[in-house]
Amino acid sequence: MSGGRDIDALIEMMAKLPGLGPRSARRAVLQLVRKRELLLMPLADLMQQVAITTRECTRCGNLGEGPLCLICLDMKRNGSELCVVEDVADLWAMERSGTFKGRYHVLGGTLSALDAIGPEELRIPELVNRVAEEGTEEVILALNATVDGQTTAHYIAEQLEGSVRLTSLAQGVPIGGELDYLDDGTITAALRARKDI
Amino acid sequence: MSGGRDIDALIEMMAKLPGLGPRSARRAVLQLVRKRELLLMPLADLMQQVAITTRECTRCGNLGEGPLCLICLDMKRNGSELCVVEDVADLWAMERSGTFKGRYHVLGGTLSALDAIGPEELRIPELVNRVAEEGTEEVILALNATVDGQTTAHYIAEQLEGSVRLTSLAQGVPIGGELDYLDDGTITAALRARKDI
Ligand SMILES: [Zn+2]
Ligand SMILES: [Zn+2]
Repeated sequence: MSGGRDIDALIEMMAKLPGLGPRSARRAVLQLVRKRELLLMPLADLMQQVAITTRECTRCGNLGEGPLCLICLDMKRNGSELCVVEDVADLWAMERSGTFKGRYHVLGGTLSALDAIGPEELRIPELVNRVAEEGTEEVILALNATVDGQTTAHYIAEQLEGSVRLTSLAQGVPIGGELDYLDDGTITAALRARKDI
Repeated sequence: MSGGRDIDALIEMMAKLPGLGPRSARRAVLQLVRKRELLLMPLADLMQQVAITTRECTRCGNLGEGPLCLICLDMKRNGSELCVVEDVADLWAMERSGTFKGRYHVLGGTLSALDAIGPEELRIPELVNRVAEEGTEEVILALNATVDGQTTAHYIAEQLEGSVRLTSLAQGVPIGGELDYLDDGTITAALRARKDI
């Protein structure tokens, strides 16, 4: 490229974002420079702002701006139902479906022998504690329908068996499918038809 | 979404960038928050930096960090060959092919009766001046093979006829094709086989 050092560095860094390759990074940066006042400067400010304000909820692992996220703070949510998801993108996908009115627990990934990710890396001990302390009546294991997702679901079910009703998303989640790729209707159907494990 | 006001605003703004929809904007923002020190903060700084330093070259319309861009400042470039392109993305595509050693003139678009874009909006008067003042021997019209691109090329050819050798990219540019989508080899071939108009 020959747009100067800063712009070359910006393109290189933008190209690292998921969904953007070198070509779309170049397009995006040209757009940003063209709309300096309307897009580039507000975006820089907003990123700086998010870097300062956004943090993980200490209870559920969702993103928020204080020690507790908006969902954990919302007293209208049903605290007796706890939906376990792999990551924040999955929590957001559940929320977009608008069906679930309980609370969440974000694991931060799945168990993986290959990547040496054990229960301690996944907030699973925290989940077991929450179920014991919060009077949880039902844990919905909304993990992805992948091998690692299902292995993780089985491990969690073993840990919690006997202490709480355990359910999983059922109808509508395609084999190998990831929650964040599904439409809202599919998620709603899967949640309504959830079955005991 | 429920990640707080700042993060929702950031996702919304990122989704406006070309190549990113709402879904990839959410993924990108989650990645940014996960890599706060490594990605989010440096990206915010870099955007602020680019907003301050980057500007249009006063001579050719390329992006750069001073009144003249790096290509205009490069004394090893052949000043007698001038390549006319629609926008900066096309200039960058030409540069990636590594074949052209002359200088550029970025029009900033194409003539369009529909959008009321006339020669004055396109730095065409500046092009005519440059050819007269810089001792240009050849003008290569590297405009996109679209109707508007070719209309613009014909208009420019009329303005410059008789004062300079006029050529256009030839072999290899597919009908309706845009330069920025072509591979480097195609651009190189088209440039080598350029023909007089
Ligand atoms: Zn929370
Ligand atoms: Zn220049």
